Amino acid sequence: MNMATSDLPLPASGVLRDGTHLLPIRVYYEDTDAGGIVYHATYLRFAERARTEMLRAIGVDLIRLRDDHGLVFVVRRGEVDYQRAARLDDMLMVQSDLVELGGATATIAQVIRRLTPAQDLGEELVTFRAHVACMQTSGRAGRLPPDVRARMKTLVKTSHSTTPSRSK
Amino acid sequence: MNMATSDLPLPASGVLRDGTHLLPIRVYYEDTDAGGIVYHATYLRFAERARTEMLRAIGVDLIRLRDDHGLVFVVRRGEVDYQRAARLDDMLMVQSDLVELGGATATIAQVIRRLTPAQDLGEELVTFRAHVACMQTSGRAGRLPPDVRARMKTLVKTSHSTTPSRSK
Amino acid sequence: MNMATSDLPLPASGVLRDGTHLLPIRVYYEDTDAGGIVYHATYLRFAERARTEMLRAIGVDLIRLRDDHGLVFVVRRGEVDYQRAARLDDMLMVQSDLVELGGATATIAQVIRRLTPAQDLGEELVTFRAHVACMQTSGRAGRLPPDVRARMKTLVKTSHSTTPSRSK
Amino acid sequence: MNMATSDLPLPASGVLRDGTHLLPIRVYYEDTDAGGIVYHATYLRFAERARTEMLRAIGVDLIRLRDDHGLVFVVRRGEVDYQRAARLDDMLMVQSDLVELGGATATIAQVIRRLTPAQDLGEELVTFRAHVACMQTSGRAGRLPPDVRARMKTLVKTSHSTTPSRSK
Repeated sequence: MNMATSDLPLPASGVLRDGTHLLPIRVYYEDTDAGGIVYHATYLRFAERARTEMLRAIGVDLIRLRDDHGLVFVVRRGEVDYQRAARLDDMLMVQSDLVELGGATATIAQVIRRLTPAQDLGEELVTFRAHVACMQTSGRAGRLPPDVRARMKTLVKTSHSTTPSRSK
Repeated sequence: MNMATSDLPLPASGVLRDGTHLLPIRVYYEDTDAGGIVYHATYLRFAERARTEMLRAIGVDLIRLRDDHGLVFVVRRGEVDYQRAARLDDMLMVQSDLVELGGATATIAQVIRRLTPAQDLGEELVTFRAHVACMQTSGRAGRLPPDVRARMKTLVKTSHSTTPSRSK
Repeated sequence: MNMATSDLPLPASGVLRDGTHLLPIRVYYEDTDAGGIVYHATYLRFAERARTEMLRAIGVDLIRLRDDHGLVFVVRRGEVDYQRAARLDDMLMVQSDLVELGGATATIAQVIRRLTPAQDLGEELVTFRAHVACMQTSGRAGRLPPDVRARMKTLVKTSHSTTPSRSK
Repeated sequence: MNMATSDLPLPASGVLRDGTHLLPIRVYYEDTDAGGIVYHATYLRFAERARTEMLRAIGVDLIRLRDDHGLVFVVRRGEVDYQRAARLDDMLMVQSDLVELGGATATIAQVIRRLTPAQDLGEELVTFRAHVACMQTSGRAGRLPPDVRARMKTLVKTSHSTTPSRSK
């Protein structure tokens, strides 16, 4: 991916650029396991942080969505591929792309990479495809409020590729 | 699933029955989130506890595998489906079936259910399909030691169904 | 501590014996960190599981307390001492003693030990002193319902020692 | 505390100012529990992130300390006070002060506050006093390397107050 070094460091909430959200995450002891690597379920936590910040970047506030609309996003299905392991103290970058949007559902393709010492994005470590749904807090089916859906629509990529560099 | 109430409660390490491993897990505050339900990454922790106990039940010891053979199991890919949410204080049952076994890889189909007050297995909450690989601790490709593979082979189901009840 | 081997294994919810609750806990990968030992905050999760099971053993149900009385237990203060590290696959035993009981507060002294291969309790690894309070879910001060307090009173030790073996 | 709004937002690794380290932390779903608040053990994870970044800010690298010197920092004792609860989506600030330094030990006083909408530091939510020790990875007693200790010495406050505002 052609990401200029000069763009970094990013703020703690990440940045939205051409519809792609980038969130930097440092690996701490809490994220690792006795194998010396990041625990496999930890990447799902990282991915959710990134989805939350992607929504915040387009003005969608999960607290207001819950309190004003009685709606929450839940994960319905996930596919995760572990290619290389992240380690203690690594600086990672989570790239999130909204690749499908329905009336109550969305699919977000997420790629976690390790930043190189030169602050370039390195190889893919883990990819996660999150299929989320908007539900009522009561547990019943929900629908995205029109203004929320309109904001999310601005993120949808025509190509569903999770690796923008190859799609160019 | 035709599981007699009289079989419960199970020991903390679960039981192996006809090649299917069953692990009871209680939901504590640590497992939940502010949505009032079990956090979505928590189910992957539950699933790994169950795979560890399934291996222990056939005499495969992860510590000895690491210290004597320099080998570890890592998750290469996972597919998780969330159908219903578990909640605080629920008693869950994780059912694990070894459905594919290669020279260095295995696929475990896992189903998490909530026990009913009558101690019967209720509906499926979450299914997880874990594709694991045996690797050297150095990070290089590994192979299952023959005796470990032989023990695991006793678990392999001819049918890959994750719901034994329907396969009967 | 004079604990007969024949008493084990304990059920997953532990046992209450002479007012002392004992909960067995297996250490899984999720509990460890890249230092090869159990992550320091993990012991607080273990301690809370044990307090929950101690209450359940005397018939106090956290869900009913919340739903029927609008009350929750919260930790107000904790003191934790780390003496020795637990490791992957260790079988631990959490011993919990209720050492002080007020109208809305309680102090629970907890000791985490590693079971020896002979299933005896080994040396202390970690001690945790949990000061909890009963609060209204609204966040305001609460009081223990009389029947709940009466049940908890049966657990109070006249000696506040966290190591019963030495107090005998 | 007299903290100018204009200083914020801080970078993800926080800032060191007059020997006090400040780390901003956003609360995500993973940090909360079914009580609707941040899980009590989560604050210990937040506190360790802050100690790691404080050390990094003075040029102490935990990975190099381990790989070059065979040394790790471990928590020996902790005292945690919970005064108010943090909630989902809160922006917190962890303030860390090194208040005692020995040849192999250090005490760090940490205060977690919630940022107000005006980006000022609000009331204290949680305080944590971490007593850490430098140990050999073998588990034996260690000593701080002279250059590491010299860097840490620059942080030591003559006053041990955890609330600088009152000490002025």
